[in-house]
Amino acid sequence: MTEEQPAQADLRRTGIHPDYWYPLAVSRRVRKNKTFATAFAGERIVLYRTASGAVHALEDRCAHRQVPLSMGVVEGESLRCCYHAWAYRGNGRISGIPYLPKDAERPPRGVRSYPVREAYGLVFVFPGDPAKAAAAPFPDLPEFHAPTHRTMTFSRTVKCHYSFMHENLLDMNHQFLHRGVLGRIQPKLLGYDTGPSHVEARYLFVPAGGRKDRGAGLLSGEGFSGGNTSDVITIRTGYPYQTLQDVPERSQLPAFSLWAAYVPEDAEQRVNHAYGLLMIAKPPVPGALNLAWPLIRRFTERVFAQDRMAVEAEQRAWDEQGEDRNQEVFPLILDVRDVLRANGVPLGPVRAGGGASPLCGGAPAAEASPPVVTGGLA
Amino acid sequence: MTEEQPAQADLRRTGIHPDYWYPLAVSRRVRKNKTFATAFAGERIVLYRTASGAVHALEDRCAHRQVPLSMGVVEGESLRCCYHAWAYRGNGRISGIPYLPKDAERPPRGVRSYPVREAYGLVFVFPGDPAKAAAAPFPDLPEFHAPTHRTMTFSRTVKCHYSFMHENLLDMNHQFLHRGVLGRIQPKLLGYDTGPSHVEARYLFVPAGGRKDRGAGLLSGEGFSGGNTSDVITIRTGYPYQTLQDVPERSQLPAFSLWAAYVPEDAEQRVNHAYGLLMIAKPPVPGALNLAWPLIRRFTERVFAQDRMAVEAEQRAWDEQGEDRNQEVFPLILDVRDVLRANGVPLGPVRAGGGASPLCGGAPAAEASPPVVTGGLA
Amino acid sequence: MTEEQPAQADLRRTGIHPDYWYPLAVSRRVRKNKTFATAFAGERIVLYRTASGAVHALEDRCAHRQVPLSMGVVEGESLRCCYHAWAYRGNGRISGIPYLPKDAERPPRGVRSYPVREAYGLVFVFPGDPAKAAAAPFPDLPEFHAPTHRTMTFSRTVKCHYSFMHENLLDMNHQFLHRGVLGRIQPKLLGYDTGPSHVEARYLFVPAGGRKDRGAGLLSGEGFSGGNTSDVITIRTGYPYQTLQDVPERSQLPAFSLWAAYVPEDAEQRVNHAYGLLMIAKPPVPGALNLAWPLIRRFTERVFAQDRMAVEAEQRAWDEQGEDRNQEVFPLILDVRDVLRANGVPLGPVRAGGGASPLCGGAPAAEASPPVVTGGLA
Repeated sequence: MTEEQPAQADLRRTGIHPDYWYPLAVSRRVRKNKTFATAFAGERIVLYRTASGAVHALEDRCAHRQVPLSMGVVEGESLRCCYHAWAYRGNGRISGIPYLPKDAERPPRGVRSYPVREAYGLVFVFPGDPAKAAAAPFPDLPEFHAPTHRTMTFSRTVKCHYSFMHENLLDMNHQFLHRGVLGRIQPKLLGYDTGPSHVEARYLFVPAGGRKDRGAGLLSGEGFSGGNTSDVITIRTGYPYQTLQDVPERSQLPAFSLWAAYVPEDAEQRVNHAYGLLMIAKPPVPGALNLAWPLIRRFTERVFAQDRMAVEAEQRAWDEQGEDRNQEVFPLILDVRDVLRANGVPLGPVRAGGGASPLCGGAPAAEASPPVVTGGLA
Repeated sequence: MTEEQPAQADLRRTGIHPDYWYPLAVSRRVRKNKTFATAFAGERIVLYRTASGAVHALEDRCAHRQVPLSMGVVEGESLRCCYHAWAYRGNGRISGIPYLPKDAERPPRGVRSYPVREAYGLVFVFPGDPAKAAAAPFPDLPEFHAPTHRTMTFSRTVKCHYSFMHENLLDMNHQFLHRGVLGRIQPKLLGYDTGPSHVEARYLFVPAGGRKDRGAGLLSGEGFSGGNTSDVITIRTGYPYQTLQDVPERSQLPAFSLWAAYVPEDAEQRVNHAYGLLMIAKPPVPGALNLAWPLIRRFTERVFAQDRMAVEAEQRAWDEQGEDRNQEVFPLILDVRDVLRANGVPLGPVRAGGGASPLCGGAPAAEASPPVVTGGLA
Repeated sequence: MTEEQPAQADLRRTGIHPDYWYPLAVSRRVRKNKTFATAFAGERIVLYRTASGAVHALEDRCAHRQVPLSMGVVEGESLRCCYHAWAYRGNGRISGIPYLPKDAERPPRGVRSYPVREAYGLVFVFPGDPAKAAAAPFPDLPEFHAPTHRTMTFSRTVKCHYSFMHENLLDMNHQFLHRGVLGRIQPKLLGYDTGPSHVEARYLFVPAGGRKDRGAGLLSGEGFSGGNTSDVITIRTGYPYQTLQDVPERSQLPAFSLWAAYVPEDAEQRVNHAYGLLMIAKPPVPGALNLAWPLIRRFTERVFAQDRMAVEAEQRAWDEQGEDRNQEVFPLILDVRDVLRANGVPLGPVRAGGGASPLCGGAPAAEASPPVVTGGLA
């Protein structure tokens, strides 16, 4: 187990590594012939879906006067800026400037484009070196496509560094926070292992009394899955993603599993957009899961709201203190902190006023981006 | 035509030159025996109109404890601070401190005063060297007083550097922005000329289809002026003002003309107050203009709202990038950028937290200052 | 009388001395088995009242992950953090970490605790050197417990440095500010004296016409005290508190008196929490004071709102100018400025973003802290 040393970089000043695929939107929010304003670590990015259904990702600033292209108009496979009507191809090259005089300066080259992949109801973008996109590992979620499972999608802004999210989920001793929703639970760490880019922990959940939210009971299978769930939960940070799984003994797919990515929005990475896919095995009784769906959603919303309250309070403390003063006593959390530090990148010097999320500035984008929760059939 | 060079000062860090007459209020907002809080480039200024009707302009901070004098009380020709009742003359000298003990320190000299001229329904102030006020050119607007014309007045805060306003109006290729209001227009640059302190461009407007706002039609004369307008528009930045005119061939006065000034509010000049006078020739049918007035206002409001959206997006991009990355290809815009740079002044070093407009701080002034649109008879 | 010299420290950059007892809450807002989030000069402090009725004051950040303990749960005499359930004693030592593994790092020592005294319906905390708490002078308010008096309690956040509050009350020439509430008053300074840690002034109040608020009349005894008040008011800054008294000639206790403390909330001390105790002698007619109570409250609220408007305007001017430009002509105010400077402490270097009150950050505390006005029977 590595110990915290003063010379180490502040974990909250560690940037997430850009050479991975990150979800930047829920697919159904990127509508045909429309734009969608999003961001990765302070880089404004516009997504647009053409009539053919393809999604492109461009730098969200016109090369001309830096007005967001997300305020623009989709025309065929191109995107045209709303202001002086410059048009761009999906690769970021300028395809037209309607009024360009003959004696004008040469127009600029265009804007940056990003590799895009659409999967699991999410639009993934590769913000790093495009040459590495094809070889980069892409999340593999067999349950998503299994007819035996159904997926609930989460998309939320949380005002904290992404590392707080990993620590929150991996340290199940925080169940005290959820005592009003989950009842009193005594999580017992069965074991964990750590590698260069992962930490995986197994917990046994022992109820210790108190009233539980009905959705929690349904999710854990008390209600309808006939004891098909275990009480052993496996939580894994596999850089840069995180998963939580409940795999019953005689089953190949989990009774339920959560896949999550925490995508920094702002340059200082003090705000992350949490995307989550909660994949739940359908119970034997047809339609039972549909009936339970709203209760499960309510339960997960309540738990998430409590977690958000805690991690945002941590970020505020960091902001006020200007440094990380966490005093960790749980060995696997020390490990995940090392993993996140070792796999990340140093954050550049901070711009004045750069702390705010680029999406929090009230920019009038063609598509605003409120919190979304959607549930798609598996 | 000058090319942009890296060594040049950032245009958005160029201050407007103070040795000009700038409108700082709409006249009817400065009521008898009342104060009005305004500002020029970070200098808080209080206007007050005495019982005699005269308007004075003083530094809006009491010499004693810096409480805004705009919270004070007009008494005869003087202005008395609300706090300890110090009184000031229109020239800024202290005329009374009611309680001054004999053994007190000598009172301070007073506060700064500014030359004031009232014209065209606006209160103009000279914020620069007072010795230059008398000789400084004052806007000459014959249409304003002509019985053949009527004037619509605009007064708005726009959150951008004043230079974005000049570039917006001079570059008519931005008509794409207004396609929903004006229909599709193909503006054709007929020619332009540039001098040390001006750029003037002539455009021919060729409709290219699409539905047009009714107000636009009325303003361009389709509705009632019997073809009395041309489709040639002259737009001129004559430092520091800007005008737009439609002068029919056989007429001395324009069918309509706009005079505008963009007055920085804050010290960093990232917010400007746009004052506009739109002077419209009355059509032959008596009363027709009055009937059309609300439609013309609605049309101009819609166009202005779109322009504001664009120029404020430009300012936000500048704020985020910390520098001007515009890549201009339209020669006359390169010229107007040079004119604005050459005629302006360098902006001083930025105070911490100095980015906000002095009028945006929620100061409880005696007269608040919401957006105003007024229409006075010519 | 000392004169202002340029080399002197800026009074608004002088911190209040921590080695005094400061009220940090109204007692009844700190309920049994509940927490209450408060602050002193940027130090977040949590108060909690145990089942036994005792109040403890701790640093409001868990030693583990710095989540506010005010979001936690009172258990017996301990306070348990909401997140991972670490528990603290009233002295700040950790009393339990439920899940601590045997191979874990040693837990941290705990959090800071503060001496607490409860009196006059307020919770006082000693934020300085705890060794000095016992010997530090504690406010002595005999009227509070006298059956002849009743107390009205004030608790308000005012967005200014505490020094503006002292100067406001001591300089009665600001009665012009209250002309609409108090009528026209000509305050006459009868005399004052200055010591190392106090300034005391006596004023004679001479009405000079104008309509007066009914509450003002009642408070000054016109209504029911049968001329039992004088018109001589004694105002005293006795570091760090301030008092105002109206002592009739043949009386031991004042007809009314105000005791006030202005407690900085934020690290830069640009926001203070004003606590006030207004103790009023009961008139001979039984119940008359109860009837007058709402009118007196309304009157004091109106006066306080005007004072707040003025002192907050002073702070805004200081913020914009970055320094103190006051030009004082009233000798006793020069004196109180010296007293506040001499008895205070230098403010440390300013953290980025440290200007905001720790209580203004929207932290979801278990007990929010809106303005409170309560009236308890003496």
